[in-house]
Amino acid sequence: MTPAEKRELLHKDRERVWHPFTQMKDYAERDHLLIEKAEGLYLYDADGNRYYDTVSSWWVNVHGHGHPRIKQAIARQLEDTDHIMFSGFTHRPAIELADKLIEIAPPGLGKVFYSDNGSTAVEVALKMSFQYWQHVGRPGKTKFAFLEHSYHGDTLGAVSVGGVDLYHATFRPLLFDAYRVTAPRISRWENGSPTPEAAEHGVAEALEAVKRLFESSADEIAGFIIEPMVQAAGGILIHPAAYVAGVRELCTRYEVHLIADEVAVGFGRTGTMFACEHAGITPDLLILSKGLTAGIMPLAATLCTDRIYEAFYDDYETMKTFFHGHSFTGNPLACAVALESLRLFEEERVLEHVRTISEALRGQLPRFEPFRHLGNIRQLGMIAAFDLVQDTETGKAFPSSERRGYHVYLEALKEGLILRPLGDTIYYWLPHCTSEEQLHDIVDRTCAVLERLGYR
Amino acid sequence: MTPAEKRELLHKDRERVWHPFTQMKDYAERDHLLIEKAEGLYLYDADGNRYYDTVSSWWVNVHGHGHPRIKQAIARQLEDTDHIMFSGFTHRPAIELADKLIEIAPPGLGKVFYSDNGSTAVEVALKMSFQYWQHVGRPGKTKFAFLEHSYHGDTLGAVSVGGVDLYHATFRPLLFDAYRVTAPRISRWENGSPTPEAAEHGVAEALEAVKRLFESSADEIAGFIIEPMVQAAGGILIHPAAYVAGVRELCTRYEVHLIADEVAVGFGRTGTMFACEHAGITPDLLILSKGLTAGIMPLAATLCTDRIYEAFYDDYETMKTFFHGHSFTGNPLACAVALESLRLFEEERVLEHVRTISEALRGQLPRFEPFRHLGNIRQLGMIAAFDLVQDTETGKAFPSSERRGYHVYLEALKEGLILRPLGDTIYYWLPHCTSEEQLHDIVDRTCAVLERLGYR
Ligand SMILES: Cc1ncc(COP(=O)(O)O)c(C=O)c1O
Ligand SMILES: Cc1ncc(COP(=O)(O)O)c(C=O)c1O
Repeated sequence: MTPAEKRELLHKDRERVWHPFTQMKDYAERDHLLIEKAEGLYLYDADGNRYYDTVSSWWVNVHGHGHPRIKQAIARQLEDTDHIMFSGFTHRPAIELADKLIEIAPPGLGKVFYSDNGSTAVEVALKMSFQYWQHVGRPGKTKFAFLEHSYHGDTLGAVSVGGVDLYHATFRPLLFDAYRVTAPRISRWENGSPTPEAAEHGVAEALEAVKRLFESSADEIAGFIIEPMVQAAGGILIHPAAYVAGVRELCTRYEVHLIADEVAVGFGRTGTMFACEHAGITPDLLILSKGLTAGIMPLAATLCTDRIYEAFYDDYETMKTFFHGHSFTGNPLACAVALESLRLFEEERVLEHVRTISEALRGQLPRFEPFRHLGNIRQLGMIAAFDLVQDTETGKAFPSSERRGYHVYLEALKEGLILRPLGDTIYYWLPHCTSEEQLHDIVDRTCAVLERLGYR
Repeated sequence: MTPAEKRELLHKDRERVWHPFTQMKDYAERDHLLIEKAEGLYLYDADGNRYYDTVSSWWVNVHGHGHPRIKQAIARQLEDTDHIMFSGFTHRPAIELADKLIEIAPPGLGKVFYSDNGSTAVEVALKMSFQYWQHVGRPGKTKFAFLEHSYHGDTLGAVSVGGVDLYHATFRPLLFDAYRVTAPRISRWENGSPTPEAAEHGVAEALEAVKRLFESSADEIAGFIIEPMVQAAGGILIHPAAYVAGVRELCTRYEVHLIADEVAVGFGRTGTMFACEHAGITPDLLILSKGLTAGIMPLAATLCTDRIYEAFYDDYETMKTFFHGHSFTGNPLACAVALESLRLFEEERVLEHVRTISEALRGQLPRFEPFRHLGNIRQLGMIAAFDLVQDTETGKAFPSSERRGYHVYLEALKEGLILRPLGDTIYYWLPHCTSEEQLHDIVDRTCAVLERLGYR
């Protein structure tokens, strides 16, 4: 585009657009980055500068941008049905996708309920769990438990089970009461993993907290929602698999639904197709979005056990219908894209490649060791993170007013790198299509940024 | 598709899919209708049967299915950017769409905040309104008012301002408290409109209720959410424009945000581009979805005044950021489709056509007069409805166990007509591309259905 076009667009952006999760005044003196083209691992701005999309565009992108097979899938679907309503009606893409999801999901899940994004899929899970207990004669089970640092979306039901005070505290008067539970705290990392002692201690302590809560209150708890293996928005907090396994065990014992929110971690990001596989468990409700469509367009799914489904299945007059639905439920275009993405997973052996790159990523972590102020260097699958801290021994944070993460972000852009931090946590959330060569280049550039900012 | 393929798909549908707003046992003996192709006003099932999509696929479709210009717009956009994150980054389709929306929306709205569906756009509006009052030093304004019979979506914030007990009562313990207000009740219709006396009486009574509430409680009310002109899911309840104008006046006087949910009625459905235009008013927050993308894929927008925006605009440290966002915010494909739809509105003079067909629809209403048990025959723009009632004088309903609406639905399918009822309310919600000839054919078929079911 011409410089004049660019100026005009950026002017309109400033005049008309309110960006998500953004203090717009941060852009008083600088523009949002105007992206003109996305291809593979790269975004190109209006001046032709190239950036590595190391955060998979907010953790959604899987096969890279502009994959030809995905484009073809959309074009093909457009020749049949664009969008039709999904109540009373059905169509091939939604059916085949549901069938495929049940096939690849942890065993024991039976039904798929579609919605449009992660937040709504969380709301579906919460409402299903809540209503289930009404139907089976345990109407006292009306509450939910969630983890500190958790993030499950921004609709008010999802916010009610959110544990990031920065995002969630403002809306307190609009939220329902829920039980906040201690998450595993890992004090020591080695080669990107918790040390065995740190893992054991963190898991034991966190499971004890769950057990205490369930002992006193399981009678009134419908479900416990977790982000299995990685709490993403709360700061890329990686948990040992033993925690997830232990939670499953406790949920079963105390008759509480385990709700696994794999919106962020699903579809291979942690090295396995679903994060629950690390622990070999099946949740009662599984929530998917983001990578579901390979990050191309909105779609979400809440999977549940047949047992839950059957509690709603009755004569209409019994009033057990699950009255929930969105206009674009089961959108055929999005379902066709999701199906094509899953075909790519198989045909291009994506998970094998993910394992290779995950190993390579782990191999790169020692390069961060020499830097000062880098704490908790950790990794799982395509995800790696560290925290900028004043003192790596004690974990003492920098004053938040220094906005250290934000400065890394700005500097990284100059280096052709999108390193969008969470506070002072710097992380990669790489698309599955990342090559080893690209990975090395990304780490080179990251080190250059840290060097320039004086972290060596 | 072959009969074997059809059988297999329907089998999988039954095994794997949980449909929205559906008692799945209603489909124990019958299948969901398997749609294979959608074109213009028609859906085609797997046996090649054709159906008029008289409900615009849940009120979303605008230009008919499979419009070539829409397909091209998607293909074009796919060549540039599929999806990229919208925080820190921006792109042409989202900017141009925001600019266009502000241009065509009622005057005085300044900013566009994107989300993925109607429910999330409602949540955005509620949260913005709530947080606004915190920022301007009126932290006591934390509550919302809503109308009886209202429907604003299925996430728990939207459910909290929902007035349809059938959908909403179950979830009471998870909802925030809100004030339910009497809606205009229209006792008499003539030629599809309220008689002047009925309108006057209904409006006066309903505005009085708002005034009483605001007098006692405006100090604690952040916003009042309405579906302007037509309460859709609550039963296609058409309101006089004077009600909307009166509500605007009261909201201004008592300093309460007027939140207009035009998810269903926006983009020409009521005969004007936005329903608020009937009353010549601008809300403080305007919610759009469904027809925004011509009904092709999920996208939503919450528009607000600059005054609201500015209350959040400050140094980051003041903690006034609106922490809300969805992964697929501002999806470039959806924005490109929405832009193309708005171009079609202009180039094909869609609103002129809508006016013509709306008049023709009104002209058809007398054909329903001779039938028994048809009450409250009403119309606005492309929307028309009547209620099946035991007694049209008193409005006495049939026992709900008779499921009269449902039987009309089943019979209409045999007649090649998708007449999806709301309880015992039968309605049209026609796509803008409907021709006069198609309209006549639809009414012919509807009359045949009513005849066969003994309503003559
Ligand atoms: C007036 C109104 N608001 C909000 C919604 C919710 O939109 P969605 O189904 O896209 O979540 C609807 C959907 O029917 C609606 O009619
Ligand atoms: C774990 C998790 N759950 C839910 C969500 C919400 O999804 P969405 O942004 O699509 O509403 C997110 C989004 O980042 C997430 O990371």
